[in-house]
Amino acid sequence: MKPELRVALLGQGFMGRAHSNAWLQVSRFFQVPYRIRRKVICGRDVAQMEKMAADWEWEETAADWRAVVERPDVDLVDIALPNHLHAAAAIAAAAAGKMVLCEKPLANSLSEAEAMAAACRPVRNGVWYNYRRVPAIEQARQLIADGRLGQIYHYRATYLQQGGVDVSRMALWKLDPAMAGSGAIGDLLSHLVDTAHFLNGPIREVTAMSRMFAPGRKVQDAVWALAHFANGSEGSFEATRFAVGCRNRNAFEVHGAGGMLRFNLEDMNRLEFLDASDPEPERGARNILVGNRYWKPGHIIGYEHTFISALADFLNQESFHPNFDDAVLVQRVLDAVERSAACGLWQACG
Amino acid sequence: MKPELRVALLGQGFMGRAHSNAWLQVSRFFQVPYRIRRKVICGRDVAQMEKMAADWEWEETAADWRAVVERPDVDLVDIALPNHLHAAAAIAAAAAGKMVLCEKPLANSLSEAEAMAAACRPVRNGVWYNYRRVPAIEQARQLIADGRLGQIYHYRATYLQQGGVDVSRMALWKLDPAMAGSGAIGDLLSHLVDTAHFLNGPIREVTAMSRMFAPGRKVQDAVWALAHFANGSEGSFEATRFAVGCRNRNAFEVHGAGGMLRFNLEDMNRLEFLDASDPEPERGARNILVGNRYWKPGHIIGYEHTFISALADFLNQESFHPNFDDAVLVQRVLDAVERSAACGLWQACG
Amino acid sequence: MKPELRVALLGQGFMGRAHSNAWLQVSRFFQVPYRIRRKVICGRDVAQMEKMAADWEWEETAADWRAVVERPDVDLVDIALPNHLHAAAAIAAAAAGKMVLCEKPLANSLSEAEAMAAACRPVRNGVWYNYRRVPAIEQARQLIADGRLGQIYHYRATYLQQGGVDVSRMALWKLDPAMAGSGAIGDLLSHLVDTAHFLNGPIREVTAMSRMFAPGRKVQDAVWALAHFANGSEGSFEATRFAVGCRNRNAFEVHGAGGMLRFNLEDMNRLEFLDASDPEPERGARNILVGNRYWKPGHIIGYEHTFISALADFLNQESFHPNFDDAVLVQRVLDAVERSAACGLWQACG
Amino acid sequence: MKPELRVALLGQGFMGRAHSNAWLQVSRFFQVPYRIRRKVICGRDVAQMEKMAADWEWEETAADWRAVVERPDVDLVDIALPNHLHAAAAIAAAAAGKMVLCEKPLANSLSEAEAMAAACRPVRNGVWYNYRRVPAIEQARQLIADGRLGQIYHYRATYLQQGGVDVSRMALWKLDPAMAGSGAIGDLLSHLVDTAHFLNGPIREVTAMSRMFAPGRKVQDAVWALAHFANGSEGSFEATRFAVGCRNRNAFEVHGAGGMLRFNLEDMNRLEFLDASDPEPERGARNILVGNRYWKPGHIIGYEHTFISALADFLNQESFHPNFDDAVLVQRVLDAVERSAACGLWQACG
Repeated sequence: MKPELRVALLGQGFMGRAHSNAWLQVSRFFQVPYRIRRKVICGRDVAQMEKMAADWEWEETAADWRAVVERPDVDLVDIALPNHLHAAAAIAAAAAGKMVLCEKPLANSLSEAEAMAAACRPVRNGVWYNYRRVPAIEQARQLIADGRLGQIYHYRATYLQQGGVDVSRMALWKLDPAMAGSGAIGDLLSHLVDTAHFLNGPIREVTAMSRMFAPGRKVQDAVWALAHFANGSEGSFEATRFAVGCRNRNAFEVHGAGGMLRFNLEDMNRLEFLDASDPEPERGARNILVGNRYWKPGHIIGYEHTFISALADFLNQESFHPNFDDAVLVQRVLDAVERSAACGLWQACG
Repeated sequence: MKPELRVALLGQGFMGRAHSNAWLQVSRFFQVPYRIRRKVICGRDVAQMEKMAADWEWEETAADWRAVVERPDVDLVDIALPNHLHAAAAIAAAAAGKMVLCEKPLANSLSEAEAMAAACRPVRNGVWYNYRRVPAIEQARQLIADGRLGQIYHYRATYLQQGGVDVSRMALWKLDPAMAGSGAIGDLLSHLVDTAHFLNGPIREVTAMSRMFAPGRKVQDAVWALAHFANGSEGSFEATRFAVGCRNRNAFEVHGAGGMLRFNLEDMNRLEFLDASDPEPERGARNILVGNRYWKPGHIIGYEHTFISALADFLNQESFHPNFDDAVLVQRVLDAVERSAACGLWQACG
Repeated sequence: MKPELRVALLGQGFMGRAHSNAWLQVSRFFQVPYRIRRKVICGRDVAQMEKMAADWEWEETAADWRAVVERPDVDLVDIALPNHLHAAAAIAAAAAGKMVLCEKPLANSLSEAEAMAAACRPVRNGVWYNYRRVPAIEQARQLIADGRLGQIYHYRATYLQQGGVDVSRMALWKLDPAMAGSGAIGDLLSHLVDTAHFLNGPIREVTAMSRMFAPGRKVQDAVWALAHFANGSEGSFEATRFAVGCRNRNAFEVHGAGGMLRFNLEDMNRLEFLDASDPEPERGARNILVGNRYWKPGHIIGYEHTFISALADFLNQESFHPNFDDAVLVQRVLDAVERSAACGLWQACG
Repeated sequence: MKPELRVALLGQGFMGRAHSNAWLQVSRFFQVPYRIRRKVICGRDVAQMEKMAADWEWEETAADWRAVVERPDVDLVDIALPNHLHAAAAIAAAAAGKMVLCEKPLANSLSEAEAMAAACRPVRNGVWYNYRRVPAIEQARQLIADGRLGQIYHYRATYLQQGGVDVSRMALWKLDPAMAGSGAIGDLLSHLVDTAHFLNGPIREVTAMSRMFAPGRKVQDAVWALAHFANGSEGSFEATRFAVGCRNRNAFEVHGAGGMLRFNLEDMNRLEFLDASDPEPERGARNILVGNRYWKPGHIIGYEHTFISALADFLNQESFHPNFDDAVLVQRVLDAVERSAACGLWQACG
């Protein structure tokens, strides 16, 4: 008989729903070593929380996360709160000996993130940089690990959204620097950096700029960075909420001596791969419809499946990545980007 | 308090899994008027059935579908058996007063299908032509209904798969004419015809050819048809299991006086729409990343969601489509296609 | 010192301009065994002909093609007249011992075409099925010839234009059956059939339908055919002037045991090639930016270059294809298509 | 009777051929106010020059450009020499009162460029930033000029080639800093900057990095820049010869309040345009097959036509752009990029 895993979910917004779905679905599609109980969901919008509890069969609801994280009948705390609350919640949960999963970005500042990582190292922990589990990104990583791209020269990533122009669909806290920190940096660039680390290793140094386009805006609408990777390749990054026409274009392109990779989250079941060992007149980017862990080839998956896969791996893998330490590495880059955008000089990600 | 709906699922193969997921998920994402109980799953592969029951929390398992459909504690029978069993199961379930959902094609012959429709008319019934619930196809239908395509001239549909070349991943019954009937006709062409009916209305007449490519093959590997639609437009159809390189390319293209639509299931979150009222130098097919009923714009869905949406509509809509009568209309076209492929003459779909 | 080749061009319309350009350009990009003289251009629209003569430096103009084809100072007659004049002009030119190049379709009827081929066999002759010289199509042919596609299963071709809806840009004679014959059959389907012959060999048998969409239209707006190829593969063809939104979408798709090819004339510098010998998880259609005989890789060519390349090959190759005999083979298929569209039965292309 | 224009072409390499073609073809497709005489071609590779003179019917050949530019029977000097010779040739030609056309980049340094512009201001002059005449880029400019993109937020440009990895096809002088200056900066980035100026106006300030990937390489293989435009938008640029898999991917993407534009030179007959005034559920980038000044819609043009169109405009327009002054503005940006790449600080383009 598998042991129970009693989960507390903090947060009942968009991400709370994605996590609830993952908790419900993970044992349908994967073998996991626990009987999962969706024990308690905790939030401040009572009506929305009650609906979510009903829809996703959370056993209880609660209003005060501080009480929840210390409950003896909770084994794991899953944090889907606004950024500024991540640190306190994670540290309290770890102090109470709970496993901790936390939404990205880990924190609004590097120092907070480092404190969290230190506090949580004794417990199992993970961060919801869910795009590592896009099958196309996993395949990209494998191709690189197998040396198929040879020496990497170029890494190019953009995250293009349009929500900053019309903020009516955006969670309000994402526009408040006290809660959201740096805006597009923590919200979007963080994803690009984690994926870059996953595929191409550490970033040594950056130069960057950032921009608030909307009058009165208090968080960054857009951010750009040029980067030196530790492996000798060069990178460029752009994340923006002002790319009118792009709904969720999280894209990268990698060029190495052995070929090219190209990906766009809006078409997340596809990966383009050019193999430079194909003879020249037949060389072309292969448009691969990537398989997945859920259905037969050609039967595609969607956004939510990245959460389910991440959760399956977290529950099954002794040393799960990305964990809090991985997220600190992201935070070091974000910190260097913020410093560089402020001073106009290259900054080490140290 | 909502009434219970006690469901019996017949079949524990690939489709059984897709249905199980729909039964689990439908009340997460949609308001439905029932408390759904996954009461009993019924199949002949005991090991696989037990695993599916465990994974998807079916309360019981059973071996004999004939007993199951008559159980007083079952309200709805969901049929995901091989084609040749659809008729007996559906008719027995209707006779027992159950609601009936049935996989496609409804039957292996027109006469069987007609008998099923007659028998099931007294009960709520529906057919799993799930692609009607692809959001892009729903949007296509709406654009056509709104007159945006004007008079339709051309309807062109292809379903390209490669499984017939290497049948190792195919359910074995799909190659046995006693169970699968006509092969690619019932398996693939049926989807194209139902979508064509949904978008462009009835087909009057067809001329067709079919082909077994593999030596010793006993079901059709491929089928082609030219068609006259009742609305005056002309159609062409092709369905094949020998399109090496295509995993699940269920695609259509429509041209009317007002513009063009283009779709491919492998990129099911996208719809191409050309609006001929755009001034000429700016005319081009718009590549629309279609929204969905599940997540925010730009956060795509996958194969399984078409089942969940279909089920939500079935549970909520008094007059759900496609029902058995709609499926009979498909079957009339398939029948005309088979006759034409045999005799080489145009055949009415009557 | 190379011998002179004194050319007479019959016709001063759109095709006359494309041919003039080819005659001017061929010796810039290719070695050819003649000093080409653009001796005389012949047409009935005096103003347009004078302009074309001036623009492209034709030495003389003439009004009566019958006189021109017999001039002793003409070595080659290039026919770019409306279809109904091809036969008389070609036969007269051959009778006078001239080399003959003729626009496609060779004729408005099979019998005319056969008479032309018989009459012209004694002289060098060629037909302007220029798309054989699209580099991507040449590469497709080479891949097939090298066995890279293995046994062919499927050949699928469509020629989608929109000019039939708004005929303001179409040459008026193309709507007059006395001059244009069958409309879309000779105008568009002929191209598809010649390319199919080039890539996949002879067509044995067809069933077809055709359609006039516009009220009062006297030539076919659209035509469809299903086909058995001699090599055992199956084909489908569609050519239409009512594909609103498509400017010049001459496209094909081939599936064989070894892979897939895909092409669209609107993107004529690209060829998609899927190599089924790539291991499954890496399989995908390669999008190849095809090189050309003109500029460096990545520097694309356009519509006009297909004429220049065809002319270079005609001038350099003892046995040039497509010649009048090749065009007769096309005509046999068109004839069978017309017969089938009229009677609704399969027709041999014999 | 039109006056003669006696042209001297300096250079017989790849660009010399493209220019020869333009001089031959311009009066075929355009009305021009001169009778053009291809008077003399001048180069140092005698065999190649003789071949080019024969192929393109240059009346004479010459070895010493200094003598040629002073010939009284020359009206216009067209410079297609390696970069380091541009200044001397242009200044001498202008001093002799000739019209001057010069390949890009105008010079290897800003000071040289400024001296050239000053010297040539008294004569008609133009620079071969030929991509301004890509019809899709002209349409992009018109859409922006018409306000269709509204306030511009983002301008993103990349020029991706792979020639630096295997230099066997590259002109040798392009790897010699004495002749080619900065490598990818002058060769590729210059194109991006000129197009950016054309579409989005002046660049105020940049921060940049550059890189030599190949051991022993003496010119830059790749360059990146972030930029502030004078109109308040933000830009990013990347040009590289190490993008394995990309043959000639000169691409840009623009986002404004009113929509988006996207272009890639490898598919130069296409422009993607998203109109944000389309209602949300129908919004998508329109894939426009752009028309051209040569053939009917749907009949595409290639690389060489950009030169022909540029030449037609130069010959017909009193105030032609891009001229030497426009090219100096490009050079100011390149200069700021080089300075920034050296020092790591933001640099004004002043």
